[in-house]
Amino acid sequence: MAQDTRTEHDLVGEKEVPTSAYYGVHTVRAMENFAITGATIAQFPELIASLAAVKQAAATTNRELGLLPPDIAGAIITACEEIRGGRHADQFVVDPIQGGAGTSTNMNANEVIANRALEILHHPRGCYEVVHPLDHVNLGQSTNDVYPTAVRLALVTSLRRLGESMGALADRFAVKAAEFGDVLKMGRTQLQDAVPMTLGQEFTTYAVMIEEDRRRLTEAAALLLESNLGGTAIGTGINGHPRYAELACACLAGISGEPVRPAGNLIEATQDCGAFVQLSGVLKRVAVKLSKTCNDLRLTSSGPTAGLGEINLPAVQAGSSIMPGKVNPVIPEVVNQVAFEVIGNDLTVTMAAEAGQLQLNAFEPVIAYSLLRSLAHLRAACDTLATRCVPGITANRDHLHDSVHRSIGLVTALAPHIGYAAGTTLARQALASGRTIKELAAEAGLLTAEQLDTILQPHHLTAPLVQPSSAVTASPAGVAVVREHH
Amino acid sequence: MAQDTRTEHDLVGEKEVPTSAYYGVHTVRAMENFAITGATIAQFPELIASLAAVKQAAATTNRELGLLPPDIAGAIITACEEIRGGRHADQFVVDPIQGGAGTSTNMNANEVIANRALEILHHPRGCYEVVHPLDHVNLGQSTNDVYPTAVRLALVTSLRRLGESMGALADRFAVKAAEFGDVLKMGRTQLQDAVPMTLGQEFTTYAVMIEEDRRRLTEAAALLLESNLGGTAIGTGINGHPRYAELACACLAGISGEPVRPAGNLIEATQDCGAFVQLSGVLKRVAVKLSKTCNDLRLTSSGPTAGLGEINLPAVQAGSSIMPGKVNPVIPEVVNQVAFEVIGNDLTVTMAAEAGQLQLNAFEPVIAYSLLRSLAHLRAACDTLATRCVPGITANRDHLHDSVHRSIGLVTALAPHIGYAAGTTLARQALASGRTIKELAAEAGLLTAEQLDTILQPHHLTAPLVQPSSAVTASPAGVAVVREHH
Amino acid sequence: MAQDTRTEHDLVGEKEVPTSAYYGVHTVRAMENFAITGATIAQFPELIASLAAVKQAAATTNRELGLLPPDIAGAIITACEEIRGGRHADQFVVDPIQGGAGTSTNMNANEVIANRALEILHHPRGCYEVVHPLDHVNLGQSTNDVYPTAVRLALVTSLRRLGESMGALADRFAVKAAEFGDVLKMGRTQLQDAVPMTLGQEFTTYAVMIEEDRRRLTEAAALLLESNLGGTAIGTGINGHPRYAELACACLAGISGEPVRPAGNLIEATQDCGAFVQLSGVLKRVAVKLSKTCNDLRLTSSGPTAGLGEINLPAVQAGSSIMPGKVNPVIPEVVNQVAFEVIGNDLTVTMAAEAGQLQLNAFEPVIAYSLLRSLAHLRAACDTLATRCVPGITANRDHLHDSVHRSIGLVTALAPHIGYAAGTTLARQALASGRTIKELAAEAGLLTAEQLDTILQPHHLTAPLVQPSSAVTASPAGVAVVREHH
Amino acid sequence: MAQDTRTEHDLVGEKEVPTSAYYGVHTVRAMENFAITGATIAQFPELIASLAAVKQAAATTNRELGLLPPDIAGAIITACEEIRGGRHADQFVVDPIQGGAGTSTNMNANEVIANRALEILHHPRGCYEVVHPLDHVNLGQSTNDVYPTAVRLALVTSLRRLGESMGALADRFAVKAAEFGDVLKMGRTQLQDAVPMTLGQEFTTYAVMIEEDRRRLTEAAALLLESNLGGTAIGTGINGHPRYAELACACLAGISGEPVRPAGNLIEATQDCGAFVQLSGVLKRVAVKLSKTCNDLRLTSSGPTAGLGEINLPAVQAGSSIMPGKVNPVIPEVVNQVAFEVIGNDLTVTMAAEAGQLQLNAFEPVIAYSLLRSLAHLRAACDTLATRCVPGITANRDHLHDSVHRSIGLVTALAPHIGYAAGTTLARQALASGRTIKELAAEAGLLTAEQLDTILQPHHLTAPLVQPSSAVTASPAGVAVVREHH
Repeated sequence: MAQDTRTEHDLVGEKEVPTSAYYGVHTVRAMENFAITGATIAQFPELIASLAAVKQAAATTNRELGLLPPDIAGAIITACEEIRGGRHADQFVVDPIQGGAGTSTNMNANEVIANRALEILHHPRGCYEVVHPLDHVNLGQSTNDVYPTAVRLALVTSLRRLGESMGALADRFAVKAAEFGDVLKMGRTQLQDAVPMTLGQEFTTYAVMIEEDRRRLTEAAALLLESNLGGTAIGTGINGHPRYAELACACLAGISGEPVRPAGNLIEATQDCGAFVQLSGVLKRVAVKLSKTCNDLRLTSSGPTAGLGEINLPAVQAGSSIMPGKVNPVIPEVVNQVAFEVIGNDLTVTMAAEAGQLQLNAFEPVIAYSLLRSLAHLRAACDTLATRCVPGITANRDHLHDSVHRSIGLVTALAPHIGYAAGTTLARQALASGRTIKELAAEAGLLTAEQLDTILQPHHLTAPLVQPSSAVTASPAGVAVVREHH
Repeated sequence: MAQDTRTEHDLVGEKEVPTSAYYGVHTVRAMENFAITGATIAQFPELIASLAAVKQAAATTNRELGLLPPDIAGAIITACEEIRGGRHADQFVVDPIQGGAGTSTNMNANEVIANRALEILHHPRGCYEVVHPLDHVNLGQSTNDVYPTAVRLALVTSLRRLGESMGALADRFAVKAAEFGDVLKMGRTQLQDAVPMTLGQEFTTYAVMIEEDRRRLTEAAALLLESNLGGTAIGTGINGHPRYAELACACLAGISGEPVRPAGNLIEATQDCGAFVQLSGVLKRVAVKLSKTCNDLRLTSSGPTAGLGEINLPAVQAGSSIMPGKVNPVIPEVVNQVAFEVIGNDLTVTMAAEAGQLQLNAFEPVIAYSLLRSLAHLRAACDTLATRCVPGITANRDHLHDSVHRSIGLVTALAPHIGYAAGTTLARQALASGRTIKELAAEAGLLTAEQLDTILQPHHLTAPLVQPSSAVTASPAGVAVVREHH
Repeated sequence: MAQDTRTEHDLVGEKEVPTSAYYGVHTVRAMENFAITGATIAQFPELIASLAAVKQAAATTNRELGLLPPDIAGAIITACEEIRGGRHADQFVVDPIQGGAGTSTNMNANEVIANRALEILHHPRGCYEVVHPLDHVNLGQSTNDVYPTAVRLALVTSLRRLGESMGALADRFAVKAAEFGDVLKMGRTQLQDAVPMTLGQEFTTYAVMIEEDRRRLTEAAALLLESNLGGTAIGTGINGHPRYAELACACLAGISGEPVRPAGNLIEATQDCGAFVQLSGVLKRVAVKLSKTCNDLRLTSSGPTAGLGEINLPAVQAGSSIMPGKVNPVIPEVVNQVAFEVIGNDLTVTMAAEAGQLQLNAFEPVIAYSLLRSLAHLRAACDTLATRCVPGITANRDHLHDSVHRSIGLVTALAPHIGYAAGTTLARQALASGRTIKELAAEAGLLTAEQLDTILQPHHLTAPLVQPSSAVTASPAGVAVVREHH
Repeated sequence: MAQDTRTEHDLVGEKEVPTSAYYGVHTVRAMENFAITGATIAQFPELIASLAAVKQAAATTNRELGLLPPDIAGAIITACEEIRGGRHADQFVVDPIQGGAGTSTNMNANEVIANRALEILHHPRGCYEVVHPLDHVNLGQSTNDVYPTAVRLALVTSLRRLGESMGALADRFAVKAAEFGDVLKMGRTQLQDAVPMTLGQEFTTYAVMIEEDRRRLTEAAALLLESNLGGTAIGTGINGHPRYAELACACLAGISGEPVRPAGNLIEATQDCGAFVQLSGVLKRVAVKLSKTCNDLRLTSSGPTAGLGEINLPAVQAGSSIMPGKVNPVIPEVVNQVAFEVIGNDLTVTMAAEAGQLQLNAFEPVIAYSLLRSLAHLRAACDTLATRCVPGITANRDHLHDSVHRSIGLVTALAPHIGYAAGTTLARQALASGRTIKELAAEAGLLTAEQLDTILQPHHLTAPLVQPSSAVTASPAGVAVVREHH
């Protein structure tokens, strides 16, 4: 049974559109032309909402400037508000990877808004003499200013959400850091035993790293809030009202709650993808740090018997189809993979940005697609790590304590008192004999038992020297050792 | 209203599973643990089919080896055949980006097959004493040999399909090349006028490039058909039957129609992602060449008045929401964007491959995800270009003809006769005066009108010299000019 | 003939060192261990100077804290000042790509400074009882705080220099923009004729883009000025004086003139490569924009006869070994290639940053290498473009003027007056007939000759509408046309 | 004091050239235009030699075709042979990163050869009437066929050398594998204890991986040996002799010893960078695998007390400026960094290849630069690892033995006999109690002591089951356990 249709036409010719569709001929052509991902732009609700916000700001501005009759403007605005509220999502049907620099996405929005406005005004769909997708909904606009502005606003919305998830993750790490504040462990550099620290210090680092990255996100958001609205086709503002840019930005700021502001040079802003590249670089930074954190979690939880065995991640599923009892670090592993995806997406963004030519970058759709996916996936990764892994982490306290006291890394704490060269000798003896640094140092008479106890106290080992060890450095033994090795 | 459930349990504890589900407890946990992309592995039908083929090969082999009772094996095989035929796709519900090195995908398959086999044997779902997802369906296997083998087979299937689409695209270019065989145009190097060629030669190049890449794909497929089946957990074959590897590969080859063969060293094969990295490199090569081709199509069709205007791409949609009559090269643009995505995916694959540790790469899921998407999107891009763009391309023959005859690039054809230095002088004069090379050469007496006519014939300009121009090079003028410039 | 040597020893054993060398045993071992690039760290004078500045700050601080005798401190400080002045560069002989997280670079500096200090104090080289590379020059330090701090300072120095070169390049573009302020040309989107603009606007865009990127560089520099000095081995400050971090940073700020400040969390700062990743992202942004600019220059200067032919780049060398008179855009081409290199280096930085483990990133040497090269090459590219290309650019004014007036892009300016649909019809007629938009619009009676003259004035075409064309939009023709197409 | 000069001229004008220089005006201009890296193409001796081989093949061919007088051809050939022998390297002075698609490199070669030929013929330098850099040395050639052919040949030479180094490295790993053939250790998947293997198996894997990659290199080399010689400017062969392509390739094959052959389509071959992208992908594969290998070496040698401590890398230098006795895995670390560089270079190659336009890729110089550096650095990395690290690796046999017998991973070997679910229970008990799997299994009566001894023998644990354990699986205990858990 054939679907009911209405006939619309465009530059190419006539085309049947489903009667029930709010979208129109341009959207139908785009669906035919672009069938790449099998999905639609509706997967990015923040993009649909931002598009509607831009269209609402335009209609409001055009009404104020006397360019759009109040009733038409009103119907358009109502339609936009509905879309921003989540309605009509199923009408946004074009593939996110599309040619045309976002024209199809803009046309899809223009058509949905026009037809919904017609409905509000009690006209049938397709009656474009009354409300026209281009002459009314798109009035004073071009895809080339509407689309980048909507993408930027959608990115800022997503960024704020990612920031919240990162904050929650940092909080979870901070809670663990407090819990592990008194657990001494060996710090490592280059995977070799270095000097002691606390497990609390290690987990604090995770929290601090995430919080620092979060600040970088906020800075990136600020760069995105420059809009080229009013620049129309190439930024010269052809066909635009001279006050449009200023008014539309103010209006959009009011609607979105974000401090959108006009770019200084609209021609530059129309073709420039620098802010996208930079945001992508910051997301890559977040990904790199998250990946490093998960690498560390996987490494320190390796075992249970033949690994480092410092911490235990909570078991969230069986680990193996062949090895009974095996539990794997599946949550950090999925975060690592999201990080790799984000780093790959950064390259896609870079390639697309570099490929821009003259007055426009035709490849913004794949930039938007890549960035919005990176943001969404990073957020899911943070949430997953924060809820399904970090809170359940436990420490193997005894094992960690032992590993510090058996380590040759303690010799570093003695070096200011006995010299670097004597320390080297001591470390070599410890490794060869399997005995502890403390025993050997005492036996060699390099330091007294009392001095050793003082130097090797945990709070001394994990912070700068409180008293620049004057008494100890006077030790003739130490000086002697320094000298005899040259 | 609550969903009906049955209780299953695993290493973590008990869990409710929907009664209607073929999948079980491990799948449910994975759905909870991995909620990244909002999509499922069912988006890759070739992966599901390949998994089922591997499971079918295993059951068949185990039956032959006397390890699995014939009735259970039979039910498992029937279930696998159903899945390979496209049934039960909605039961493959885990996220393609998942921790656990593919364990959740393997578990999902084991559970669906076990429960469907139970049904075939007239037992209720969850009655794992009769058919167990691990003890029976996964018998003699590990995720670590099943999953990579299934991924490789799925990639080969996808590769074959991409190859077909590339072949069809090459054919379309070849048809156009024949159509444009007699159209002379200026060849360009570094975007500067170089020497003449035919538009047919240009389009032949597109066809040849694609065909050459297609051969590289076939080579990459060959590398993927090495399987580590029988290696079980880490490739040592622990718990496996000594004849399993050989028999299972042979069986899988029979089922799939692809010449799957056992890897030479199963331990190496279990951890090695080299073939994935190499395939990704070849896909990147395809992407780079497709992108270059589309760049050229966009460039040579630039205009209509202020561009190169050599060819016209068919109009497939209106180009602008503000500029009436504008038609854009949207099809090549979408292909470019797919290329950028594929290049980004290659980086994701690289990062994931490099991150593998010791006896397994835990990040194969994101490798599979990236490669399968690259393959599917490249295929869609080729199909789109082949059907919606190339056949409708037309040439602006007059414009092309003029551009050759007004070009200083013709001087190169005279250089063997008049010397490089004299050519330089002539070119400079032509540029300054706006007159043609032919006029100026004749006027200066460097060559006779007859000589010029011969040299500047199209078939002379676009191929090596047929008669090494002995008569002409004897021209004293030429020699003189060579000399006087030093 | 054998070189004169002195014997030094370390953890590995004894080793001969050239008598004339300021460097010592650790440096000699590093030269043997790392022979990758065939070059030395001396290729980065800003790194050597920064290392010396850090060592000077350390000696000064240690003297103030009473940890280093004044005479030894004085000699060390003098040696550091000499190095900062460019002396002893030939003594920095280790390969920039080295294992050990920068230990070899730090050791190289420690040894050169110690031996030069010994010389200043009239002791022979190698007499480490008097001035020891580790116990004195490296006192209170670790490679893990010294090396990253020196690298960061070197990057800031390089960034400032790149900023200057970018500023000079932007100035050159701005000069050209002023020169071309009255040259009308067709703006293009997606390589298709869009709407008019001036060549001055196009060149202004180049200048604005570069200036904006320059601001991003300054922000990146600010992030780099956080130092982990005083963190010693892993950031806990073990063996350090509690006031060291604060004093050493203040001292380094004084010496370098850069506002170096202590990081908030020294443990985090010791392992965190986020600032490097972010800087690399900003350099990638610069590269992308420079590459895009050069792509545009190459495209608009394509020709001379069969290209866009809008501008001419100065001829700086002969273009071809076979095609006389050919001039190529070699300067933009070399800038493109530097951009590609910088984008590749960004990936190296990303991989290295992600690979960091636990309390230290062992791969900072390749991060430093990549970033310092990117900065130096970008600077050379900007200087090359600024001096050898931009100032000599000329415009083909007549050709540009013609291209605007023959273009269908003018129809966009009429659309607010005649409607989008009528515009589409007009554009199609123009393309088919080869006649101009102006002629056809007048002929169809859509607008009067007077209206057309007003609308098509250059200053109207390249800026927003001054008077929102009320009189014109009342035209019944326009309205009619809008209507009849639905 | 001014340098003695001679005057030469080109398209741009007159220019002074040092009298002593073999190079000429085109080279001098290129030196001025391209000052990016501070280095010259002489850093790639294989490129200089390959260029000379191409020029020699051209002169020989032209002599055979009667296009070049025998005396001039003879002098050119002698000059080329000298260069191939390593002479005149200091005359190759252009920067490897250069605009012009390699024209400057070709011109540099043409000029050096012409002037050296003049000298051989007893003429002064610059006397180009006798031997002209273009009309004679470059006869029948274009940069666009000469340069890519020389680059390809240089890459093949470098590939062969890298292959040798990889072979030597694989051999070193194989020697160690034999040495460690009887050392049992825990295999790990996802960093968690999996099932036992031998250290010999682990080292065999390293050897096998490298050998497999080496085969991929050989395949890549084959793709590079297609030459577009004879295609001249754009591949149409304009100005070329119809037999030139075939003769010159045969001649070049003879000179170089490599089976150079003409490409099937010279136009496609002239613009196609696919083989470079593919080679780069293979080098990336090598880098990924080397990096993974070094990651494993660093991980398994972590310690000495708080790490995995399975193997010891030889100490090649002191590890720390603050931590006495610390030894770091500096050799694997430097290899990791080379890998990251190579992966970055791959991106540079990709960007440059994608940026090619129409009949030529103008960015081949940075492609050549990146690939030649990747090859040289990879080779140095392999040599370093092979000579300074692998041979000195030792195993901590006792520690490895203990780790296997304390591991719950042994339960996997019992699973075929007691079922997956019973295995899970046993593993959980072992982890909770700290007791061994063997003890607990015996105690629970799941298997007899004799059965356990048989199953847990090393050669059973590290290979497929020799006797499909019929006796054991009949155990009613095992079956019971399987059942009771459902």
